[in-house]
Amino acid sequence: MRALIKESSEENLKLKEVGFNPSLGPHDVLVHVRRASICGSDVHIYKWEEWIRSRMKLPRIIGHEYTGEVVKTGELVTRVKEGDLVASETHIPCGHCYQCLTGRMHVCKNMKILGFDIDGAFADYVVVPEVVLWKLSEGIEPEYASVMEPLGNAVHTALVTNLSGKTVLITGAGPIGLMAIEVARVSGASFIIVSEVKDYRIKLAKEIGADVVVNPLEEDLVKRVMKETNGEGVDVFLEMSGKQSALIEGLRSLTNGGVASLLGIFEGDITLNLDDLVIFKGITVYGITGRKMFETWRIVDQLLKRKKLDLSKIITHVLDFEEWEKGFELMVKGECGKVVLRIND
Amino acid sequence: MRALIKESSEENLKLKEVGFNPSLGPHDVLVHVRRASICGSDVHIYKWEEWIRSRMKLPRIIGHEYTGEVVKTGELVTRVKEGDLVASETHIPCGHCYQCLTGRMHVCKNMKILGFDIDGAFADYVVVPEVVLWKLSEGIEPEYASVMEPLGNAVHTALVTNLSGKTVLITGAGPIGLMAIEVARVSGASFIIVSEVKDYRIKLAKEIGADVVVNPLEEDLVKRVMKETNGEGVDVFLEMSGKQSALIEGLRSLTNGGVASLLGIFEGDITLNLDDLVIFKGITVYGITGRKMFETWRIVDQLLKRKKLDLSKIITHVLDFEEWEKGFELMVKGECGKVVLRIND
Amino acid sequence: MRALIKESSEENLKLKEVGFNPSLGPHDVLVHVRRASICGSDVHIYKWEEWIRSRMKLPRIIGHEYTGEVVKTGELVTRVKEGDLVASETHIPCGHCYQCLTGRMHVCKNMKILGFDIDGAFADYVVVPEVVLWKLSEGIEPEYASVMEPLGNAVHTALVTNLSGKTVLITGAGPIGLMAIEVARVSGASFIIVSEVKDYRIKLAKEIGADVVVNPLEEDLVKRVMKETNGEGVDVFLEMSGKQSALIEGLRSLTNGGVASLLGIFEGDITLNLDDLVIFKGITVYGITGRKMFETWRIVDQLLKRKKLDLSKIITHVLDFEEWEKGFELMVKGECGKVVLRIND
Amino acid sequence: MRALIKESSEENLKLKEVGFNPSLGPHDVLVHVRRASICGSDVHIYKWEEWIRSRMKLPRIIGHEYTGEVVKTGELVTRVKEGDLVASETHIPCGHCYQCLTGRMHVCKNMKILGFDIDGAFADYVVVPEVVLWKLSEGIEPEYASVMEPLGNAVHTALVTNLSGKTVLITGAGPIGLMAIEVARVSGASFIIVSEVKDYRIKLAKEIGADVVVNPLEEDLVKRVMKETNGEGVDVFLEMSGKQSALIEGLRSLTNGGVASLLGIFEGDITLNLDDLVIFKGITVYGITGRKMFETWRIVDQLLKRKKLDLSKIITHVLDFEEWEKGFELMVKGECGKVVLRIND
Repeated sequence: MRALIKESSEENLKLKEVGFNPSLGPHDVLVHVRRASICGSDVHIYKWEEWIRSRMKLPRIIGHEYTGEVVKTGELVTRVKEGDLVASETHIPCGHCYQCLTGRMHVCKNMKILGFDIDGAFADYVVVPEVVLWKLSEGIEPEYASVMEPLGNAVHTALVTNLSGKTVLITGAGPIGLMAIEVARVSGASFIIVSEVKDYRIKLAKEIGADVVVNPLEEDLVKRVMKETNGEGVDVFLEMSGKQSALIEGLRSLTNGGVASLLGIFEGDITLNLDDLVIFKGITVYGITGRKMFETWRIVDQLLKRKKLDLSKIITHVLDFEEWEKGFELMVKGECGKVVLRIND
Repeated sequence: MRALIKESSEENLKLKEVGFNPSLGPHDVLVHVRRASICGSDVHIYKWEEWIRSRMKLPRIIGHEYTGEVVKTGELVTRVKEGDLVASETHIPCGHCYQCLTGRMHVCKNMKILGFDIDGAFADYVVVPEVVLWKLSEGIEPEYASVMEPLGNAVHTALVTNLSGKTVLITGAGPIGLMAIEVARVSGASFIIVSEVKDYRIKLAKEIGADVVVNPLEEDLVKRVMKETNGEGVDVFLEMSGKQSALIEGLRSLTNGGVASLLGIFEGDITLNLDDLVIFKGITVYGITGRKMFETWRIVDQLLKRKKLDLSKIITHVLDFEEWEKGFELMVKGECGKVVLRIND
Repeated sequence: MRALIKESSEENLKLKEVGFNPSLGPHDVLVHVRRASICGSDVHIYKWEEWIRSRMKLPRIIGHEYTGEVVKTGELVTRVKEGDLVASETHIPCGHCYQCLTGRMHVCKNMKILGFDIDGAFADYVVVPEVVLWKLSEGIEPEYASVMEPLGNAVHTALVTNLSGKTVLITGAGPIGLMAIEVARVSGASFIIVSEVKDYRIKLAKEIGADVVVNPLEEDLVKRVMKETNGEGVDVFLEMSGKQSALIEGLRSLTNGGVASLLGIFEGDITLNLDDLVIFKGITVYGITGRKMFETWRIVDQLLKRKKLDLSKIITHVLDFEEWEKGFELMVKGECGKVVLRIND
Repeated sequence: MRALIKESSEENLKLKEVGFNPSLGPHDVLVHVRRASICGSDVHIYKWEEWIRSRMKLPRIIGHEYTGEVVKTGELVTRVKEGDLVASETHIPCGHCYQCLTGRMHVCKNMKILGFDIDGAFADYVVVPEVVLWKLSEGIEPEYASVMEPLGNAVHTALVTNLSGKTVLITGAGPIGLMAIEVARVSGASFIIVSEVKDYRIKLAKEIGADVVVNPLEEDLVKRVMKETNGEGVDVFLEMSGKQSALIEGLRSLTNGGVASLLGIFEGDITLNLDDLVIFKGITVYGITGRKMFETWRIVDQLLKRKKLDLSKIITHVLDFEEWEKGFELMVKGECGKVVLRIND
């Protein structure tokens, strides 16, 4: 089968034919991949960044945001059956740690990562344990289904509190930030302010429905937030940029007693004044990783099934599998929303 | 000034000139009424129902859903000032009971009711303590402002849980039920089922955005809910009819672990099987009264200020004050959504 | 092996030797039973009450509250291993319904019941799927471990809200009600009022730590609650009696905005005034069944492991397996707290 | 009357006779002070630290943790009456900002501070607005009543989540940290680990009921936590030291999905790895300031009224007013728990 593979440190990613003769364990599922989308972490591997080199065993087929059809199931699989259309978690929980036993699989202590610890989904087929699979409701287009995983990040981050009638600041309008705009919009947020530095994404953020988009390199974000909110600040702050300055400005923009939900990764230490930004203001800060398994997936599925979310402006590119490198380059430049690869029809 | 007044048990409500020479206490506010809307409880007084006769001291100016302009303030008033546009709570809390001291004024133990225990707002002027006033954000039309109190009931009932991506059943499409449809719709509910028996309101419910409207006299509500939800039942049930049959069918329609939020008044005992309907299913039931003061008002204000809610189909009639009786008759027949009286411009 | 079995409708329960030659499925576990305790539902079977006759397939080994040692595991079992000491859920979830997929296994739609739908634990050995097993922390005595299931009911019911500094009313001081007293006591409840009609249990409730025990046949419960709470009513009401009068008096005893948590089963319809008891007061009512799997178990385990709970007065009888009928008779009379059977050492 | 006063930058605090001829506003209350306790912030003023010099207008009577008797009330005061025993908030909310209007007075945007912005309670009499007063339940000793304000900090910090059956780490065993141990203990925490560097307070922490006390200068805190919790980490982390190292070690000690509640003030920027410490672990962080008005006070009052909390070991010194300087010196050295001044009997 075809697979996008990292074979060694010396070689770049390449799309090539690989042997594939899977033997399914009793809870394994073989999925024929239809669409897969490119995650920022895939781009880190593509660029082969320093920090990733020591952590990843090669060779490895990458890719973890995907949808496909179940073609074969291990003998004890009960959650899905042949012919089911599915999307998938990236996080493979152990099933027996404290977290897994108490409804928090998404922060499993022994987590494995699809496309990193085991072979991933930029391939014609992928084998995963049934525990990561979500059976799609009818009526979800394959392009939308392939981005349910990052969309789940947006939902998990945005819905830590009830947004109806609340003012929201989102820092960072990358693919997940753009999705968060849409999630906040349909969840009743009364006013959505976005900060972003790239022109392409500033334009997209406006088109998707942000009430105000601020380029913090050109305008004082906190002042603008205060102006738009009668000096009160926003109720909810969603951090999706991984920039220290965005974090600090976002916390300063929050109203006393407000809520911050942090998804962006800062890649290193950050320095901030917790007294003024969090403690004296009585702020609640949620660290967000992954998606609740499967409360978040259910919400995502329902919103897509019932056509509540419009992702047409967020999925900016749907490319053939062979065009994968073009997709990666778009991601590097930030001149895209979400990029989906058409693996099979 | 003009006032709609119940003078004695023998006489009907009448609109007449009454003397008005208010002396404001230090925390009192004189409001020039612009719009006022008719509540179901006003209709109970109009019909002078049995249960109400012994509870209400006469004469009394009725009416409690209204908006107006502050024209004079007591010497210690800080919350509003002359010229402010305001809407108002009906519930006048004592300020010093256990509930008032612990953030739950809306269930104050010593509550007084505007238009019932003190003179109300179907009049050119009304005097209220500042504690009940909500200063309007700019840009809220007076018709919308006059229904913020019942809209607050809808918001308080609907937002006991995060509706984003959830399926919702609303029993009863009277004015507040209709508002709840709109609130659920803009708050991300994935699918909204409504039960209602009156043709006029069935039609309205559909126009406002219910996905399915069931007449439970013609169709089995529970079966229909199960059909629409793959046999799972709905996540959230909002009871707004005050009918025992609706309560029971609603609870049967809930998925295990679901949430019921009860606003409708049953006027007497009800009989039900709590074991099967609530306990074994692990249901959470919220009894709802009034509006959180003023968390709920803030949400209502924001949703209106930012034009997130469309009430144009819900406010079906805007009548001159002199046409008040027509408004009450529409309410009696149920051939209306919300009826607003234009008291002053 | 020895088993307490209901063989046919005509015959009583009997303790007898039965053939036992289990073949374990890949996720099954064979447990050597050490202690088992008698549940109220076991007594219903013992008395062979009307409603139970049509629901239960015979023959059936009963019993579902137990602890024991793992002696053999199916080939795919990962949660426990040979030699582990375990306690067990009674509720066997399907693992793939909406509830199971979204962190609510305890209200699984396709639930099976140990000792009812499959053979139970009043026997030398029992076979269960690993999903129901809880591996015990070190230092929990077998008598305590055998009652973790009903203790989990008490914890699940009592801890729906934070009890620290709150006044609590518990109606019904049967075994689980007694446990709830102890749970509330160690969880910071400031004042615990209990209602109970049986002298034996009134005495026990006081010894365990209830601040006030009321016999509602002799004293007006609501008046007493109001007297003890400065007329405010209690913050939290735990219903554990399954009596309509207790439910109504409990709701009347609640302060406005209070919380009711219902575990007792009413066995048929109940009639009450929801308007006055729940809606106008803004009460939240939790229907409780089972135990959260395994959040509740974790709490129970920690409280026992760290010796925070004293069950010595609640477990009133520890009998040899052969004395089972004496245990059942004590339960029928209500002259006991919890009764534990010593199956094996 | 006698007052402990900071007259000018050049002079130290001194206890002296000052003129006092209060005119009460309509909502003001004159309180005869009985006991007052020394807060860490009072010590900052005593030491006249750099950062405080520019913020505080002099002369000023300091002190804000106190209890006393109402001796006179403004004409509109309803919350208390002459003869009532009271304790008091330090935080004086404005009553009309967004926070005050939505149940969050403790993070009022226009907060004034007793003993800092207005004259305080280290004096025979103090005048405060009624909004800050809490009327004491009967049976609370004056020494305990005088520390309800810092005890409220401990309760507010500790009870952000339900502690029953949870493992808790408290960093810092100053007076509020010591109180937090006691609060956690009576609220059902299953295991309490404390870190502290001062011998005097290590000893106190053990006596009060910490299960383990670690001196992080002598032992690796994270390792010890992991050892005590089977490698899982603690469920709840209460930061009460204001040290960056404690914050980082505390977050590292938390189990995935755990809760951190931060009360300690860091006095400047801190540097940490949010990715590893908060985001990837799915941690929730609560910034805590003040006490919920008056939900927290109610809990404190109930716990004291019902004798659930033992503060006898925490209040280590009760001194005469004239011995105030001895009290401050004890605080400087850290050789005390809470120090109470006996102002009047």
